[in-house]
Amino acid sequence: MSTNNTAKSGQTTKEPLVIFMPSGRRGRVTPGQSLLDAARQMGVEIESICGGRLTCGKCKVQIEEGNFQKHGVVSTQTNLSPPGKEESHLLERMNSADCRLSCSAYVHGDMLVTVPEESRAQKQIIRKSATERIIEIVPTIRQVYVELDQPQLGEHRGDWGRLQDALAQQWQLNNLTIDLKTLQRLQANLRTGKWAVTVTLWQDKEVIAVRAGYEEGAYGLAVDIGSTTIAGHLCNLRSGDILATESLMNPQVTYGEDLMSRVSYAMMHNDGLDKMHKVVIEALQKLASRAAKAAGIRTQEIYDAVMVGNTTMIHILLGINPVELGAAPFALANRDAMDIKARDLALRLHPGAYIHVMPAEAGHVGADNVAVLIAEEPYQQDSKMLIVDVGTNAEIALGNRDWMFSASSPTGPAFEGAQIAYGIRATPGAIERVRIDPLTKAARFRVIGEEKWSDEWLVGPDIPAADQPNHLAIGICGSGIIEAVAEMYLAGIILPDGAFNKAVASEHTEWEGRKGAYILATGEQTATNEPILVTQDDVRNIQLAKAALYAGAKLLMNRAEVQAVDKIILAGAFGSFIDPKYALVLGLIPDCNLDKIYAVGNAAGDGARIALLNRNKRQEAQEIAHWIKYIETAIDPDFQSEFVNAIHLPNKVDPFPHLNGILPAAPVLSDTGATSQRRRRRRRQ
Amino acid sequence: MSTNNTAKSGQTTKEPLVIFMPSGRRGRVTPGQSLLDAARQMGVEIESICGGRLTCGKCKVQIEEGNFQKHGVVSTQTNLSPPGKEESHLLERMNSADCRLSCSAYVHGDMLVTVPEESRAQKQIIRKSATERIIEIVPTIRQVYVELDQPQLGEHRGDWGRLQDALAQQWQLNNLTIDLKTLQRLQANLRTGKWAVTVTLWQDKEVIAVRAGYEEGAYGLAVDIGSTTIAGHLCNLRSGDILATESLMNPQVTYGEDLMSRVSYAMMHNDGLDKMHKVVIEALQKLASRAAKAAGIRTQEIYDAVMVGNTTMIHILLGINPVELGAAPFALANRDAMDIKARDLALRLHPGAYIHVMPAEAGHVGADNVAVLIAEEPYQQDSKMLIVDVGTNAEIALGNRDWMFSASSPTGPAFEGAQIAYGIRATPGAIERVRIDPLTKAARFRVIGEEKWSDEWLVGPDIPAADQPNHLAIGICGSGIIEAVAEMYLAGIILPDGAFNKAVASEHTEWEGRKGAYILATGEQTATNEPILVTQDDVRNIQLAKAALYAGAKLLMNRAEVQAVDKIILAGAFGSFIDPKYALVLGLIPDCNLDKIYAVGNAAGDGARIALLNRNKRQEAQEIAHWIKYIETAIDPDFQSEFVNAIHLPNKVDPFPHLNGILPAAPVLSDTGATSQRRRRRRRQ
Repeated sequence: MSTNNTAKSGQTTKEPLVIFMPSGRRGRVTPGQSLLDAARQMGVEIESICGGRLTCGKCKVQIEEGNFQKHGVVSTQTNLSPPGKEESHLLERMNSADCRLSCSAYVHGDMLVTVPEESRAQKQIIRKSATERIIEIVPTIRQVYVELDQPQLGEHRGDWGRLQDALAQQWQLNNLTIDLKTLQRLQANLRTGKWAVTVTLWQDKEVIAVRAGYEEGAYGLAVDIGSTTIAGHLCNLRSGDILATESLMNPQVTYGEDLMSRVSYAMMHNDGLDKMHKVVIEALQKLASRAAKAAGIRTQEIYDAVMVGNTTMIHILLGINPVELGAAPFALANRDAMDIKARDLALRLHPGAYIHVMPAEAGHVGADNVAVLIAEEPYQQDSKMLIVDVGTNAEIALGNRDWMFSASSPTGPAFEGAQIAYGIRATPGAIERVRIDPLTKAARFRVIGEEKWSDEWLVGPDIPAADQPNHLAIGICGSGIIEAVAEMYLAGIILPDGAFNKAVASEHTEWEGRKGAYILATGEQTATNEPILVTQDDVRNIQLAKAALYAGAKLLMNRAEVQAVDKIILAGAFGSFIDPKYALVLGLIPDCNLDKIYAVGNAAGDGARIALLNRNKRQEAQEIAHWIKYIETAIDPDFQSEFVNAIHLPNKVDPFPHLNGILPAAPVLSDTGATSQRRRRRRRQ
Repeated sequence: MSTNNTAKSGQTTKEPLVIFMPSGRRGRVTPGQSLLDAARQMGVEIESICGGRLTCGKCKVQIEEGNFQKHGVVSTQTNLSPPGKEESHLLERMNSADCRLSCSAYVHGDMLVTVPEESRAQKQIIRKSATERIIEIVPTIRQVYVELDQPQLGEHRGDWGRLQDALAQQWQLNNLTIDLKTLQRLQANLRTGKWAVTVTLWQDKEVIAVRAGYEEGAYGLAVDIGSTTIAGHLCNLRSGDILATESLMNPQVTYGEDLMSRVSYAMMHNDGLDKMHKVVIEALQKLASRAAKAAGIRTQEIYDAVMVGNTTMIHILLGINPVELGAAPFALANRDAMDIKARDLALRLHPGAYIHVMPAEAGHVGADNVAVLIAEEPYQQDSKMLIVDVGTNAEIALGNRDWMFSASSPTGPAFEGAQIAYGIRATPGAIERVRIDPLTKAARFRVIGEEKWSDEWLVGPDIPAADQPNHLAIGICGSGIIEAVAEMYLAGIILPDGAFNKAVASEHTEWEGRKGAYILATGEQTATNEPILVTQDDVRNIQLAKAALYAGAKLLMNRAEVQAVDKIILAGAFGSFIDPKYALVLGLIPDCNLDKIYAVGNAAGDGARIALLNRNKRQEAQEIAHWIKYIETAIDPDFQSEFVNAIHLPNKVDPFPHLNGILPAAPVLSDTGATSQRRRRRRRQ
């Protein structure tokens, strides 16, 4: 008896020291306390779903030092309680026999504990962007395992009441509501699970699912609804991993290629909105099903979705007629973020699933742009960042942690290959890369779907099919026309004002009256046997589009009173395909160190994924959407003069020091060319 | 100039006194203040929807004294600003030329103002119940009229943002959400209303409707879903008026007459729940449409509904399988009140409408009983009130402001005419009233659908059809069998133990072995030409049913340690049809002064209506449901002995002093009769 007492008092007088790695947090604990409790006490977050019931195995840790027999008075005492049968069994099944479950390991002596990445409650993913960044995993969806009392005669809390009591006692979750669809199946699930269930919560407020027994698995969908393409990531909401990425055409293209034609369709047809709403929901359903299939999960295991898109796409998604966005003052139905039940949009995910629609900034700067902002976080940085997302409208944002401006510029569809004589979408056979010899003025190019440049092609009736290129040229896509015009300028074929240089006589140019055309591909190189030309009108249309974009960016710089930007982010698919050098040569974007121009791909989709995985970023998005100052280009008096200056290549007044050595020492012409061209355009309209 | 100044300072130094009637509140106000503001300042609630825009006319008041020309220095000054053109016009249209609109009448001198009933913000209705009671009208639905800013270029709040701003500024309504269905139509409605709209709010939290311009009208449905009958009141949520009352058969009867058979149906058929759920929703839809039609409104103007019913009905309504209610421990899926969107039950009211499902007390005491409680408010009274709601199960509540107990007793369906040889539902031709001559033992009766008692009927082949009764007897309904058995007892035909008295030899009784039968109607009086009898088994079944009911009530009295109750409330249709005297003679209920026994009709429906009109009563219902102590009769050891005593008429041991002079001085038999009878029953089972 006395020995025992001594041993006990010996333990209590000296409290064991526990150090957790990699955080390095340390503290003394009460002997006999579980490692999980000790960790929580020290603010080390170890994951646990089952709450110490030896079901989930999430709380495993490695004991680096101290898990040995103590030599001394109490020889059978170890620094840590030995594992029980159940724990050992579970660890073996997890191939983690070298680990311990912190909920079931009780501290009796000093030790050093490593919490492996997968056991940390606050998980992280690293996003590759202009600035590499760490995303904490704090989803709106949480799953917990509870065991609850069986009902007793003479006790009337009801099954939901008893589940609430268990959630309050075991997880400190209070004031919960339950989704009707989940309540409908609650009693059966509780009984199948023998009064042990896995509860899925939305925002720690609403129970949206109850599954029998211990059955984890919560997935979410991040979707960017573009006018042309709908792209989505299916993510594991616990790990943050992307399990599948799927994309499909936006079926609304049937009702109009660009936004304005869809707004018109909704305006002209009574059932226009309904039709476009229905097809986008069907497309989202297809996307969800495909992604779930690819990831090997069921669509019903998707509990949350984040949707971004331009304002027109989001209006149609929500079943709101986009007609007001078609004319000034471009009034949104709603600017702010919304949480709605997926079933209210007839989207079949989990019956209790939510959709979070991100906020917009203004009538023409939508949730997709806000998503880009939370992905790139210009508002967290000291350097002045310009973000350009080019589409039919270009969304532009400029700023840093102290100020942010945004604008939308009407670039028109030229960058997408429309309004270009031989323009086509980016499909196999589309010319996407162009080089022009400054001396001979001869072009070589590369088409989508064929590795070889055109000057290495073997073409002609005598060449065996196997030796011919996979695809002959069929037209020019957006990035192709950018490079073609830039190279024509660098080769002196066109002048800084965009006019064909009459001084250049070459077999590669054709003339018709005052209008020149450049022969990019010969009849032999094309699928149609007709040459592919870059016309004077094409050059003009590119000039107008790039001038709109540049003027928008310049407007924001003027507002911010900055002369130059530190970084430029090219967001979106278009940004990924164009070479920053040519963007700068054309004067599509303001002067910048070429090393500081980044193409970040589908940043809107990444932003949606970040908002899916981190509920705090949803709040941040809402704040940024309100904080950023939107500049209405259409009513800004500076816009027109900046636009006129920007019609020149690269610009009539702004210097481009970073193009020194790249630009030709071409004569700077007077402004007659460009303005007379603009006058002609007006007359034609 | 100086005169004006004097006049002004003269007004400000003496602040006018305003007295509001009927509240009698009084106070001094700033000269020039509107009467509406003055009223609010003094805590007098005057209604206003349009917020002083001379649109709604809700704030009209009568000026009793003071609206006259002031004789003195400033002769053109009246105590009240004169009405403007718009105000006069609106008052004329309302036939209220003698009134003023308090929002537009400015105080300049003392006055006495009467606020008419219809202008009071806190409206009331008076409910006729055991204790007449006043119900404040405080619905969850509120309608306000707002005018909002038009959208401007360069302003990006969105239409919903601007509506929120207007609601915050004009009505101090903050942190609002908007229903998706309403958001979908928001922009169109704002424009149709030229930026003036009537907004419908649920609980001052969610905007569930926006109508163009000023267009009031909010209606609600209070529904009691009974096993047999679904009954609903359609109410004006502003005035509290009942605009229509409709009822229809519960179509679930196809799947089982009583609760247990419906639970069985759900248990035995995979689609049983779905079928029963679907038909009850269809029935509710029909009820809503009929009521709306009768009231001259559209179903889409119903914004709120309160549903009550027994626990099985509520489970099926919510799409929850009632199987757990079929066996101990009778676990409810959910005991508490719920607010759900009507559309989540596929019920088409207003697209944003809510359904409030009232709470239950226990597995067998449902929302209908809680509704009875909030209608009768026993918990607000000093006197001890017993409430009995008889159906297949009888729900019993007993208590006062200090304590409340409730129980459910398995009375079986005898009171509904089932398990009775000639028992039928309460339809035309059913015997509902019975009198037996104590000397001759001859019966006279009245059937439903015929005014005359049977002893005034002219029947037989020689009587012209026009002189014959509208309906001949076809059977005995619940209230008829109660009266028949009670009158048989009073006439000495049966003994206190329920056995037929062999000492009574009469042409009105038949004997078959040891079993007697009483001829209630002769073949001439019935549609079938066969006599209608009350058999010994009928008497036994009524005895068993009434004993269950009495034992339940007695159990609660024992628990509460009270010897007698002060008041008895008979709730439900059955309670309305039976004569309290006969209920007491049979010993269906404990002894009570006959004047203190009240039949209150559909108190559950009234309670639902009260909860519809007063949101505070919903909170009260939730608290009462938790506070009342439910006694499980099935496991209470006292129940059996109370049951055995209660098989006697009126009771074997309890005295019935209030029946003095009514009961016959019959010999009290030993208990042999009743217990041997019970033994026989057991053997037969």
